[in-house]
Amino acid sequence: MTATGPLPAGEALRALLSPRAIAVLGASDDPVKIGGRPLAFLLRHGYRGRLFPVNPARATVQGLPAFPSLDAIPEAVDLAIVVVPAERVLEALEAAAAKGVRVAIVFSSGFAEVGDAGRREQARMGDLARRTGLRVIGPNCQGFAHLPSRLIATFASPFLDETLHVGPIAMVSQSGAMAGMLYEMAREAGLGFNYWVSTGNEADVQAAEILAEVVEDPDTRVALCYVEDIKDAGRFREALNRAHRRGVPVFILKSGRSAEGRRAASSHTGALAGEDQVYEAAFREWGAIRAADPADLLHLPQAFLRYREAGPRVAILSNSGGLGVLSVDLCVDLGLTPAVFTDETTAGLRAALPGFAPAQNPVDLTAQVLSDPGLLMRVLPLLEADPGVDVIVFQIALFGAATDVGRVAREVATVAGRTTKVVAASCPQRRVVEAFRQAGVLAFDDPTVALRSLACLARTTRLRPRWLARTSGAVAPPSGAPEIFRARASAEDFLSEWESRRLLEPFGLPLVQSALCADPDAAAHAAERLGYPVVVKICSADLPHKSEAGGVALGVTDAAAVAAACRRIRRRVAERAPGAAVEGFLVQRQAAGALELALGVTADPVFGPVVLVGAGGILVEALRDFRLLLPPVDGAAAEEALRALRIGPLWDGVRGGAPLDLAAAADLVMRLGEAARVLTGLVAEIDLNPVLVGPRGEGVVVLDALVRLVHAEGAH
Amino acid sequence: MTATGPLPAGEALRALLSPRAIAVLGASDDPVKIGGRPLAFLLRHGYRGRLFPVNPARATVQGLPAFPSLDAIPEAVDLAIVVVPAERVLEALEAAAAKGVRVAIVFSSGFAEVGDAGRREQARMGDLARRTGLRVIGPNCQGFAHLPSRLIATFASPFLDETLHVGPIAMVSQSGAMAGMLYEMAREAGLGFNYWVSTGNEADVQAAEILAEVVEDPDTRVALCYVEDIKDAGRFREALNRAHRRGVPVFILKSGRSAEGRRAASSHTGALAGEDQVYEAAFREWGAIRAADPADLLHLPQAFLRYREAGPRVAILSNSGGLGVLSVDLCVDLGLTPAVFTDETTAGLRAALPGFAPAQNPVDLTAQVLSDPGLLMRVLPLLEADPGVDVIVFQIALFGAATDVGRVAREVATVAGRTTKVVAASCPQRRVVEAFRQAGVLAFDDPTVALRSLACLARTTRLRPRWLARTSGAVAPPSGAPEIFRARASAEDFLSEWESRRLLEPFGLPLVQSALCADPDAAAHAAERLGYPVVVKICSADLPHKSEAGGVALGVTDAAAVAAACRRIRRRVAERAPGAAVEGFLVQRQAAGALELALGVTADPVFGPVVLVGAGGILVEALRDFRLLLPPVDGAAAEEALRALRIGPLWDGVRGGAPLDLAAAADLVMRLGEAARVLTGLVAEIDLNPVLVGPRGEGVVVLDALVRLVHAEGAH
Repeated sequence: MTATGPLPAGEALRALLSPRAIAVLGASDDPVKIGGRPLAFLLRHGYRGRLFPVNPARATVQGLPAFPSLDAIPEAVDLAIVVVPAERVLEALEAAAAKGVRVAIVFSSGFAEVGDAGRREQARMGDLARRTGLRVIGPNCQGFAHLPSRLIATFASPFLDETLHVGPIAMVSQSGAMAGMLYEMAREAGLGFNYWVSTGNEADVQAAEILAEVVEDPDTRVALCYVEDIKDAGRFREALNRAHRRGVPVFILKSGRSAEGRRAASSHTGALAGEDQVYEAAFREWGAIRAADPADLLHLPQAFLRYREAGPRVAILSNSGGLGVLSVDLCVDLGLTPAVFTDETTAGLRAALPGFAPAQNPVDLTAQVLSDPGLLMRVLPLLEADPGVDVIVFQIALFGAATDVGRVAREVATVAGRTTKVVAASCPQRRVVEAFRQAGVLAFDDPTVALRSLACLARTTRLRPRWLARTSGAVAPPSGAPEIFRARASAEDFLSEWESRRLLEPFGLPLVQSALCADPDAAAHAAERLGYPVVVKICSADLPHKSEAGGVALGVTDAAAVAAACRRIRRRVAERAPGAAVEGFLVQRQAAGALELALGVTADPVFGPVVLVGAGGILVEALRDFRLLLPPVDGAAAEEALRALRIGPLWDGVRGGAPLDLAAAADLVMRLGEAARVLTGLVAEIDLNPVLVGPRGEGVVVLDALVRLVHAEGAH
Repeated sequence: MTATGPLPAGEALRALLSPRAIAVLGASDDPVKIGGRPLAFLLRHGYRGRLFPVNPARATVQGLPAFPSLDAIPEAVDLAIVVVPAERVLEALEAAAAKGVRVAIVFSSGFAEVGDAGRREQARMGDLARRTGLRVIGPNCQGFAHLPSRLIATFASPFLDETLHVGPIAMVSQSGAMAGMLYEMAREAGLGFNYWVSTGNEADVQAAEILAEVVEDPDTRVALCYVEDIKDAGRFREALNRAHRRGVPVFILKSGRSAEGRRAASSHTGALAGEDQVYEAAFREWGAIRAADPADLLHLPQAFLRYREAGPRVAILSNSGGLGVLSVDLCVDLGLTPAVFTDETTAGLRAALPGFAPAQNPVDLTAQVLSDPGLLMRVLPLLEADPGVDVIVFQIALFGAATDVGRVAREVATVAGRTTKVVAASCPQRRVVEAFRQAGVLAFDDPTVALRSLACLARTTRLRPRWLARTSGAVAPPSGAPEIFRARASAEDFLSEWESRRLLEPFGLPLVQSALCADPDAAAHAAERLGYPVVVKICSADLPHKSEAGGVALGVTDAAAVAAACRRIRRRVAERAPGAAVEGFLVQRQAAGALELALGVTADPVFGPVVLVGAGGILVEALRDFRLLLPPVDGAAAEEALRALRIGPLWDGVRGGAPLDLAAAADLVMRLGEAARVLTGLVAEIDLNPVLVGPRGEGVVVLDALVRLVHAEGAH
């Protein structure tokens, strides 16, 4: 066989997933050393492809014939594992590319995580990959494992264990140690892996690309990711889209939520993550489920391992009244609905339960269940039959030694096996959890974890259609620079308000009625046409902050006052900003509304344009009451963001007043999202502040609009 | 020995903690039945006191001579365990009281939890206890255990186990099954109990009384409580005070956070809990640490089992960069401070760590720690020596089979043993946790749990002095009804604004300058004295909602307008509320401020007066931005509550403006707290809304005050 040319990215990665021949560059004879482990693991766990240790100092390595160099290997090699010192990595990769290797995994550290010199070296690695088509995983990674095929191409410590824990989880992590930790935690919880991948610094291959491949494997039931940054938002989104189409939920643990954490992440894998809130928006809208910590990353998926969907209405069954009450609290906290039973169910419960147990949700089996083993199977079918119940959760405080746990588990399994509802149990006692799992019942070792996971399943069930619908909305390139960009000889950073309006007008934003006037007389005429009171403002690209420059007069009520206001503004601006190029005076109808919003667009280096939806007004702005959205913004997302603000209750009316025009506000947010999308790469910032919202049917109006262009060259 | 008379409550309960003789009423020969278990447990676990089964149908029970009745027992009995059917419980308790028994534990169900009839029966049980001095635990409880003395007076299933898990935890729970669940969970976590008490429906003895006793035991290191309601706030507070004096932290899991949960709790133990927010306020101010769920109730105390106090500055050490970054995020979330190292520490780290590891917090030991076993002991002493570090946490992602875990644990133990700093480790691997614990190092099985528990310890360290200082502020009885109550022939529900002002004036509240005027002319004169603009209001106890009655005129600017406003108001009120008794017109100086607050007092049936501190204004009120405080309110609590509002950032200035007068606002809240305390039982509600806050140094002013008295009889 001879070397093949570069493959399309996906195809090369698929070669990683099932290589026929693997070379280890820098292979050590010591199976415990980092350089010895990959070979030791592949041999011990029974990998069936061909293995070629490369080590110029030895004739054999761990019993296999060794080769002095990669090109001395007489066969084609699909995967090269690189365990040489940092300064020799590039040379090894060149050799691998020359040999026609498709994928190289670089364990070596000493790149972007150590500073600028390392960062440059890593950039050369990326260049090499793009130039040659060799796909590079790492550097500073712990490698890759596909457990069903025994392909353990890693030095990670968990694989020192004799047994491989194979299962439905695909894990992709930028941190190898974190991935190892999760492997150990999963094992303790009785869970196993399909794929286990560490991508390290990501000179070339990104976690998102691996994710896009592993979700295609029918043995993958859930995907878990640990990331410190996302380098290419488009690839990440495409990976999520694939996962949604395959019905594979993606759970993400992202560190760097705090500024301190981001600094630390940058030192760890060289990650340069932006504001966490933009990630939060991307996860929410594109459908990645965010976990709070490593335990959560294993807790949330558990319901998904047994069920594909769930409704929100939960019947709680417990042998502890207290645990039942707590479970109801937790349901409410988690957005689940404690089910309200039908009269038939209630009557049935009354007949089935002892007199002192209330016939309602939560169902308290009381200590009676100890002395009356038939009780459970008189109660469970009632919940099964109730049309208002989607999920049945049996929260077991504990079972004493006298309880026949096997029998209870089999009874619950009988119901779980025949109903379309979700049936789950929890108990802190390991033997009880194991009995339920053996009987085929979804079982948790903690009542809160059970409800968290079920709430996550119910939420995903509700949102998945929306996530799927959004997959079509891939970001399009801007549809040509609008006229405003051509009109300007050189792009200043800020546009004037008038220019900003002209740029945004084609998107149909409800901008307040305005006239641009050359002098005080023209302004007075314009005011007569608009009707009083009016607002008079200076119009200048050099004065983005008009008020501070003395360039605004509010509540002007007749023509003479308008002219006087213009002259006063002109005088003050001449004093405070003598060099400013003035376009004229803007005269606008003064408007009032029940609620102020502040909307905006910023440009994120990774995710591109980001729409900000916030509460406005002096007092409310201090609350930092805002949400971010990624365009394109659909109506559901816009409305949800507006409702999710802390001021959300006001949409239904301020102090018993009329409801506000949420639909009009949502329409404006969608249009702003469209502007942000079309102007991607041209506009650095848009501010619509204030936006006044009127009562339902009376619409919204944008009182001020400010656009900052992408600096200089970028604007043409 | 003969029967003794009733003991003071505490003394009787101490008799419970160490009874010399126990009778079981309704003792069964079957050691697995509920009636047989207490005797079986006491015998099996080796209780050393005397045991008397009472069962008229048998000569022996579980090998002991049985007695036909309690009074047939020839000796004094300290503790009676009552396992008879509900309808025979009162009779059994009468017999116990007659015999001079000090404490009875009632396992039987069928009381307040089943409805009104049961509630009445339970009330009779409480009456019996008060009349006879017999202290009654239960009904509907699972009993009591003091593990060191083998006093297992319960039927709870965990004690079917052969081994008793003795340790430093005292657990007091209104739910027996919940207490049993926590016993099992603690056992899984390697923790044990000193006391284990279930109080059930609390006809007589309340959880707080048990708590007050068990914290006095030097073997109790932490106390855990599960409650659905608190019946006597004073007892609860006294128990917490005792715990603070003993240095025993009290952790509370309270269900019924949601309205749905409260309904369920009421069906469970007959609990009638009020608004959860009042509980939250009591826990926060009186110093109970609230847990979110059963797991949390065991997680939070763990740091307290090894350390009494901790500072907030945390050095993170990890063998995973990713876990280090996550830990920094978690520190920030939890209110801990990632420590900033001194230059010496940084230089030392640079020398100790491999070149690619950053010399900063978090300290990443990298995979280097595998091949360089001396690394840890080069790094740990640096953190130990850094004066900016209070806590050192070693977050271990995992240790491979090749790591000498025992050695690592001993090294960490060496440092932990000699430093005054807190040293802790976490690792998801059980064998690693066990190695650290054996070496005497505080160790957790989850990195988040480690930081949560340490954050809780640091917070408790900071707040304990305040909690201790507050113990002196026990609620005093009202210092005599003020004049206003004597002045009124019969208490109406509402006072007029003028009466409300007179009632509140003695407390020094900054009420806006006002004059009560009999007619329009007097009002005009008053306005001339006050200065314009003024506000004119109707003054009537029958019109608590003045604006709705057309009884308010704002921004009145001259004498003629004041007189006209009075006449207009009189006319409108006569139309809308023809029967209202009018005291006159209130004329007030119209004020402005940078921020509006809404303050108030309500009366909680359990906790008494509650002070509400909230953001005011139409828009902000919709956010439900408020905090509750329990009087007496000290300056720290008032300021903390004002800062904790969502509008809290505004205290430092609105949009770059001057800081606001937080001190004056806090002073007002304290004075309102004093008014609430003094007027306890007389006043049902006080509303100060709006309260205007000015810039620092310019004070606050109360623009409107409304008092509602406790209805009728209560007001005299």
